[in-house]
Amino acid sequence: MSYRVGIINVTGYAGMEAARLLWKHPGVELAAITGRSLAGQRLGDAFPHLAVYGDTLISPEIDVEVDIVFSALPTAESAAACEPFVRKGVKVVDIAADFRLKAPGAFEQWMGKQHPAPDLLPQAVYGLPELNRDAIAGANLVANPGCYPATSILALAPAVAAGIIESQIVVDAKSGISGAGRGSGGGFGYSEVNEDVSAYKIASHNHQPEIAQELGALREGVEPKVTFVPHLVPMTRGIHATCYAPLKASVSNDEVRAIYRDFYADAPFTRLVGSPPHTKHTLGNNMCLVHPVVDERNGMLVAVGVLDNLVKGAAGQAIENMNLMLGLPQTMGLDLPAVYP
Amino acid sequence: MSYRVGIINVTGYAGMEAARLLWKHPGVELAAITGRSLAGQRLGDAFPHLAVYGDTLISPEIDVEVDIVFSALPTAESAAACEPFVRKGVKVVDIAADFRLKAPGAFEQWMGKQHPAPDLLPQAVYGLPELNRDAIAGANLVANPGCYPATSILALAPAVAAGIIESQIVVDAKSGISGAGRGSGGGFGYSEVNEDVSAYKIASHNHQPEIAQELGALREGVEPKVTFVPHLVPMTRGIHATCYAPLKASVSNDEVRAIYRDFYADAPFTRLVGSPPHTKHTLGNNMCLVHPVVDERNGMLVAVGVLDNLVKGAAGQAIENMNLMLGLPQTMGLDLPAVYP
Amino acid sequence: MSYRVGIINVTGYAGMEAARLLWKHPGVELAAITGRSLAGQRLGDAFPHLAVYGDTLISPEIDVEVDIVFSALPTAESAAACEPFVRKGVKVVDIAADFRLKAPGAFEQWMGKQHPAPDLLPQAVYGLPELNRDAIAGANLVANPGCYPATSILALAPAVAAGIIESQIVVDAKSGISGAGRGSGGGFGYSEVNEDVSAYKIASHNHQPEIAQELGALREGVEPKVTFVPHLVPMTRGIHATCYAPLKASVSNDEVRAIYRDFYADAPFTRLVGSPPHTKHTLGNNMCLVHPVVDERNGMLVAVGVLDNLVKGAAGQAIENMNLMLGLPQTMGLDLPAVYP
Amino acid sequence: MSYRVGIINVTGYAGMEAARLLWKHPGVELAAITGRSLAGQRLGDAFPHLAVYGDTLISPEIDVEVDIVFSALPTAESAAACEPFVRKGVKVVDIAADFRLKAPGAFEQWMGKQHPAPDLLPQAVYGLPELNRDAIAGANLVANPGCYPATSILALAPAVAAGIIESQIVVDAKSGISGAGRGSGGGFGYSEVNEDVSAYKIASHNHQPEIAQELGALREGVEPKVTFVPHLVPMTRGIHATCYAPLKASVSNDEVRAIYRDFYADAPFTRLVGSPPHTKHTLGNNMCLVHPVVDERNGMLVAVGVLDNLVKGAAGQAIENMNLMLGLPQTMGLDLPAVYP
Repeated sequence: MSYRVGIINVTGYAGMEAARLLWKHPGVELAAITGRSLAGQRLGDAFPHLAVYGDTLISPEIDVEVDIVFSALPTAESAAACEPFVRKGVKVVDIAADFRLKAPGAFEQWMGKQHPAPDLLPQAVYGLPELNRDAIAGANLVANPGCYPATSILALAPAVAAGIIESQIVVDAKSGISGAGRGSGGGFGYSEVNEDVSAYKIASHNHQPEIAQELGALREGVEPKVTFVPHLVPMTRGIHATCYAPLKASVSNDEVRAIYRDFYADAPFTRLVGSPPHTKHTLGNNMCLVHPVVDERNGMLVAVGVLDNLVKGAAGQAIENMNLMLGLPQTMGLDLPAVYP
Repeated sequence: MSYRVGIINVTGYAGMEAARLLWKHPGVELAAITGRSLAGQRLGDAFPHLAVYGDTLISPEIDVEVDIVFSALPTAESAAACEPFVRKGVKVVDIAADFRLKAPGAFEQWMGKQHPAPDLLPQAVYGLPELNRDAIAGANLVANPGCYPATSILALAPAVAAGIIESQIVVDAKSGISGAGRGSGGGFGYSEVNEDVSAYKIASHNHQPEIAQELGALREGVEPKVTFVPHLVPMTRGIHATCYAPLKASVSNDEVRAIYRDFYADAPFTRLVGSPPHTKHTLGNNMCLVHPVVDERNGMLVAVGVLDNLVKGAAGQAIENMNLMLGLPQTMGLDLPAVYP
Repeated sequence: MSYRVGIINVTGYAGMEAARLLWKHPGVELAAITGRSLAGQRLGDAFPHLAVYGDTLISPEIDVEVDIVFSALPTAESAAACEPFVRKGVKVVDIAADFRLKAPGAFEQWMGKQHPAPDLLPQAVYGLPELNRDAIAGANLVANPGCYPATSILALAPAVAAGIIESQIVVDAKSGISGAGRGSGGGFGYSEVNEDVSAYKIASHNHQPEIAQELGALREGVEPKVTFVPHLVPMTRGIHATCYAPLKASVSNDEVRAIYRDFYADAPFTRLVGSPPHTKHTLGNNMCLVHPVVDERNGMLVAVGVLDNLVKGAAGQAIENMNLMLGLPQTMGLDLPAVYP
Repeated sequence: MSYRVGIINVTGYAGMEAARLLWKHPGVELAAITGRSLAGQRLGDAFPHLAVYGDTLISPEIDVEVDIVFSALPTAESAAACEPFVRKGVKVVDIAADFRLKAPGAFEQWMGKQHPAPDLLPQAVYGLPELNRDAIAGANLVANPGCYPATSILALAPAVAAGIIESQIVVDAKSGISGAGRGSGGGFGYSEVNEDVSAYKIASHNHQPEIAQELGALREGVEPKVTFVPHLVPMTRGIHATCYAPLKASVSNDEVRAIYRDFYADAPFTRLVGSPPHTKHTLGNNMCLVHPVVDERNGMLVAVGVLDNLVKGAAGQAIENMNLMLGLPQTMGLDLPAVYP
């Protein structure tokens, strides 16, 4: 007997990616999918790459019994949709940013509107199993990490936890265009972003407090000061975070690599690699590859992380969280090669 | 108990794609993989996207018992590697072009060298299940179709078989760069082929006789005259074939669509679609999408086919053939959504 | 003393490309530029790549004296804007499709609305100097060719004029995404069209009658039946047209090349090349490269043409026409290398 | 009467870009071009985008009188080719890295071989006019900046010169693939680098000491510690450097912008912009766009610079240096719009 999953807003990239990945998941079935603009259509007609789903229909609402719900609505629209499910005891993974920031007022400050269900914030667990596996397993509401934070935190966590770096951290992140979402309109037209790199929201992106919050939770007394600059690069999928932090004391590459290896010894989806990783090595699967390097001349740690923003940075991570929440094996349905080249 | 598969030349794009697709195949196991330049390395070290394979090593030769062998060597090198397996009764799928052309002298004419095992040519079955399912099921040696021919033949076969088009056919095909292979060198450097479209081997590509041969076998007395022009477009994967043939008599779009629907009624991987298909709708899976349109003003059939050149155009097709040859369900391991966007 | 040029709608890709190319034109000055949505802004603020223009402002209307006007408005909006200038004797180049189709009712049939100034159609000259240089020089209203027709006609004209091909013609055209225009919205988002090829408007694009009309004018009694299929490929600029027509009689490659060489002997911007041309070889300049090949096996002519859709396919062509209309040297301001790689 | 220019190694991307840009330069003529592998060919046959050059031949050596020579040979091959011209009094711009590092032993340390003409190093002027205009004007040998250093130094120079930042600097740079050069082989094949971002030579690239050297010369007592990490992104042209340095004291965005505005008040090709610049805004022209932002939360300066690696990062910069060395106006032949989109 398999668990029943509902996806709210299958029409965005994260929602349709969840449907793609769930197709072969042996422990669950896709019981309901919603998408306002396409309600009533067959999933495979609306999105030909999902034609395997045959007659599955897109509904306006989740109106059948489900064991767990993924919300792939845009940030600041998602909490309101998640709330009724949480209140009636259905497990929820919110892929949007609505339940991530814990500090009172943080949501209001960064999203520019009131949170619709602030009383639910304390029970929301930040859904990065490399840090919070047990808490996720016991949670009813999981805040799935942002794609930039997932990459950045995984690149930096072992160094922060080990206490080898100063708190002044730079995260220079490069994202494929799908991170901007499906309905993101004119600024992301092909002719505008092809053959182009640009930064945006320099030191003002709402993923900055998310990174700082989670890194700060890793070690007593640490308050990371994160300068976060996201960039758009002309590719569809992939995030590459290059993180920089001054080392507190001299440490060798071997020592740093040992710290990382230990930290991720039990993490099935985060892997230490021996040369600079390529985003393409994770295209379509749930892996995050990390690669720390010591810049000895300057006493600086450079830590690189890469992943697929729609998988480990969104839908794959949601499924990994679901597995833990439902008591299924953590890797179920997710142990896949990447698509290369 | 699962069947044991060997891949010769896992270091090319078709070979590594076979490894990727076989990872989750429930009926077989990957028992041996070869790759001269990388022999002795772990597969996942050589190709990080295949890290799931853990300790699997690349060997210089297939030196264990296997039930079936895929050869992913370059055309004109493959036959010699396939020959010993065929002779000792191991089933073989040749992904290269070495066993495709049946006419005496055709291999010599188009490849410019002697065939090393011409006595095996008569037993080789052209591995397109939409045309030859039963023959493939009984074959010991299958010639896997070329990526351009697979697309073109699937776009045209119903029309040829129904006798509704004249024999003067134009196939204008557009391919992603991975079709040129992994070791294809300087002419395919990023800066040279990015932001560029060009034709090549105009009316002189060795896929032309392959298309003509297989279309000609579909109907008594038909000798298609195929003008085939391949083009390179700046993407990694995907083939789009636009095929043109004068209609013998007036026929409506509905009639043509009915002919196509009937022809592919039992084909799990070729699907008639109602609007021009996108190569991206098949990225990473084994589907071929076809779309015929009648140009009524000019009495011309326009038939479009799209697929992923490394899957239905190479490794996925090889696995589909393998399934038939081993008596497994045709779709086993291949019923996957595409990766989109 | 230089002539004064006005550009209507500098905010589209064709309009801004005209501004780019005119910057170094020694015979004219840019006297007025309009763009409703950006009126009042400095050109270089609205479009940073045009920062060389310094304080030049975008106006709502052309309200200064000009010698010639380019309209870069969308098709079916342009004629109304051109009309007053034509009526008061200002020379006009319409980059849109509004004055191209001559047959009564053709505009209505293909654009789906009434032409606002049908009485001006007879005086409009089709602005392809390779065919109509003298008429353009004497014209007050020039209909600048569409990007697809320019490429296709230049690829086929010598063969049609020489009478060596049958009238059943296939034009398979591939275009970069900028051909869809700047305001073209969601269907052309990066993540949707990257790594993708697709056909659209199969045998129903309004460039089809334009190609047929102009080819038909090349030789007495010829009525070309053109099957035209446009495709989008993932690049920003460039058009590649591959044209197919049965040869009436056997003819050698050398003979065909001689026909083309003679036809374009005096054409400064259309050049016969000896191997398949790359769109990239014309990026940013006004060249069209043509390459005819005889498919001897099948008695078929394959003629390739490539150009930059925004230059020889739009703004550069408009300037070439302007040069002729103003009595300036045909190549003035346009004899530029392409940008490569 | 115009000056005579020679280009050594027109067959690399920098060399052919110099030829492209010199075509319309009103003060010089291209008198000689060399390229060993293509000697004897017409320039426009070897490189169709340069067909405007007509009968100009590629020679094995510069064997005519020239006033100035550009060497576009690879680093560590260039000095030997430049040496004879310098010794006989011909002005030289070395586009390679051979004359950039001044510290004794630096060349040997970073390039791994002996410098062939170390006695010439003291007279070589670092060719960044924003810093060294007068010295360049009086130089006989100019070391043209590397593409990464040009971008990074221009992004940081005003802040370093003003003394507002600490010496611990991070430069995170993203480059298009053409930076790897034309003959750069397999690792830069389209299918490998498309849809991919990766870092390389983390904290070990030879542009790191070049950046540190030139920033250190800007202010007495400053010894910048530069952590430099280059990345490849899937585009052909363009460099985006994002630079990070802790601010010594609180300073506002307005103050920083005033510092930058003053510093570049007389610089025709470096422009302060008000929003994050796009590499695409400089495609094909000699502009560098800079954009400093204060991250007030963390006391960090973020300074972005973008340019076209083949123009302001190579051939355009060489021409700007040439203009100064020959007493021509600094902007001659270079005041061009960018090619967009």
